Amino acid sequence: MDNRIHNFSAGPAALPLPVLKEVQKDLVSYRGEGLSVMEMSHRGKTFDGIIKDAEDLMKEIMGIPQGYKVIFMQGGATLQFATVPLNLLAEGQAADYINTGSWSTKAIKEAQLIGKKVNVIATSEDKNFSYIPKKFDISANAGYLHITSNNTIFGTQWSNFPQTGNVPLVCDMSSDINCRKIDVGQFALIYAGAQKNMGPSGVTIVIIREDMMEKSPANIPNLCSYKTIGSKDSLYNTPPTFGIYIIKLVLEWMKSVGGVEAIEKINREKASLLYDTIDATDFYTGTVEKDSRSLMNVPFRLPSEDLEKEFVAQALQNDIIGVKGHRSVGGIRASIYNAVSLDSIKTLVAFMKEFERKNG
Amino acid sequence: MDNRIHNFSAGPAALPLPVLKEVQKDLVSYRGEGLSVMEMSHRGKTFDGIIKDAEDLMKEIMGIPQGYKVIFMQGGATLQFATVPLNLLAEGQAADYINTGSWSTKAIKEAQLIGKKVNVIATSEDKNFSYIPKKFDISANAGYLHITSNNTIFGTQWSNFPQTGNVPLVCDMSSDINCRKIDVGQFALIYAGAQKNMGPSGVTIVIIREDMMEKSPANIPNLCSYKTIGSKDSLYNTPPTFGIYIIKLVLEWMKSVGGVEAIEKINREKASLLYDTIDATDFYTGTVEKDSRSLMNVPFRLPSEDLEKEFVAQALQNDIIGVKGHRSVGGIRASIYNAVSLDSIKTLVAFMKEFERKNG
Repeated sequence: MDNRIHNFSAGPAALPLPVLKEVQKDLVSYRGEGLSVMEMSHRGKTFDGIIKDAEDLMKEIMGIPQGYKVIFMQGGATLQFATVPLNLLAEGQAADYINTGSWSTKAIKEAQLIGKKVNVIATSEDKNFSYIPKKFDISANAGYLHITSNNTIFGTQWSNFPQTGNVPLVCDMSSDINCRKIDVGQFALIYAGAQKNMGPSGVTIVIIREDMMEKSPANIPNLCSYKTIGSKDSLYNTPPTFGIYIIKLVLEWMKSVGGVEAIEKINREKASLLYDTIDATDFYTGTVEKDSRSLMNVPFRLPSEDLEKEFVAQALQNDIIGVKGHRSVGGIRASIYNAVSLDSIKTLVAFMKEFERKNG
Repeated sequence: MDNRIHNFSAGPAALPLPVLKEVQKDLVSYRGEGLSVMEMSHRGKTFDGIIKDAEDLMKEIMGIPQGYKVIFMQGGATLQFATVPLNLLAEGQAADYINTGSWSTKAIKEAQLIGKKVNVIATSEDKNFSYIPKKFDISANAGYLHITSNNTIFGTQWSNFPQTGNVPLVCDMSSDINCRKIDVGQFALIYAGAQKNMGPSGVTIVIIREDMMEKSPANIPNLCSYKTIGSKDSLYNTPPTFGIYIIKLVLEWMKSVGGVEAIEKINREKASLLYDTIDATDFYTGTVEKDSRSLMNVPFRLPSEDLEKEFVAQALQNDIIGVKGHRSVGGIRASIYNAVSLDSIKTLVAFMKEFERKNG
């Protein structure tokens, strides 16, 4: 049963084994209460404890300052692409966006789709999104600046977040939330689909500075209103209870291994191992400028597409899955989220070296 | 571990024990693949099989005719309250609603909130929503007629659905989907939060006649567009994969016990047992007109609020939970969804008789 695979999927992705074992143990009867967490009223005492713990642990682990709220929503980053402008843009106001790849592009398109004005103040499209733009001018009257902290598809990541002055900074942190220590105080709003670093798909974590909640207009769907969901502590309607429970367990696991600082240290070691393997040879080629490389998603190419296909196929035979690059860019990609162990990275690196020896 | 409680919660609610055991067995490694369903790519072969099975089983169990699509969305009925008018109402068009209680009221308010025109063509508010209206005139040019098939809070249920001619019939079936055989061909659109009869919270099942999908305007959030989500077979973005997996298992369980016809038979037996117990004495009083009584939610009163409090407290001591009436109406309510066993009903009835003997 513990014969686990090395899972490099981009998301939904690997979860910590101790979390899965805990979920399994309590699946039919949570802590002897005689029912599953899935079967509990979201307004009962037990679930109330679970969701409060999840919020509190999120604040503790992430070092969220006073004056912020943690809320749980649905619809993933994709619904946030619409929700953010619906809530934060006043009539006629425009927002600034920096385009660092597929997800930023989708966020921009969705805002435009629902009739909002967007200024794309920087983009790395000129070099196939292989870097994080360093030069841009933020519009003084922008409703907010939107960035994507990590691009899962192209494998880029912001290392220093932009200084935005009075312009609220909004960040899609779906694929790197809690991979490293950040200063939440820099952000007006952070959102993240849970399915990379935090739990199963179907829950969106939103960290919002409380004054931002006041911006929500009254005429948007309640499920998209930060004010509605925030003021009801994520219980305006039935939330995705089981997913929130798993997020709580993931946060407890993070705490047990030393918090986000300890996890960042391991993540840097994991990423270095992989990037060093890529850089040590001409057989593998990284596709991202070095100072924009992601700690979470490591894309690289082989000398030919045929070899890339062979790489994926042989990886599978070695219990390594999820290394095929995104359908929109091809190549190889290893997603190495928090729950992907150093042992899995070492297995992948050993496989890469052996594959090169045979095919190089 | 199997020391299970008698769970009469209104939702999230009891799930079939064989389903939970199956989930537990495969939690850490699904069918020996070395990873949990929660950890799988939603675009991989295994999950593709799971979601297709869920769709196909839904069509089979519910007897869904050709020309309909089953899609999985997020946000529960509450987001559908906005999604339905956003998609189905043309500019300037109004919709008809029949108000049978809290959920219909919320659906009406949400449509109005987002600026849509609503005609409430009937309501049972005059008698505290204790019956299903029988007389109403559907507006000839209505965009659709919206009904709530079962009201969880007041315990009413439509037995015969309205004939709507050319006006599309839209139904919130969250709390009684698959509790009985229905003719899906009567409906243009059915939606249901999964957390009563079908699975955990966080997944919304939508059954839509394909011509309705064409009505979705281009300028609404993609996550709220039936056309977007439907045309991508629920995979426009990452769906709530684990919830969809559990829905598949619940449908397999339904099939294994004889399908919806067999479940309807047991449901009628379960409801009769409870209603007969209520009707046999003046100690318990049903609150709903007999021909509008729900098969799923059975509300009743005791001679005093003090006795009701005592009833809830003593029930808990007898491993019976979830029988407190909704905070908006008080009293007692037993929710007896598909997964609540006949044995649990018998336990509740025995407790009711004993409680009456002691306190009557």
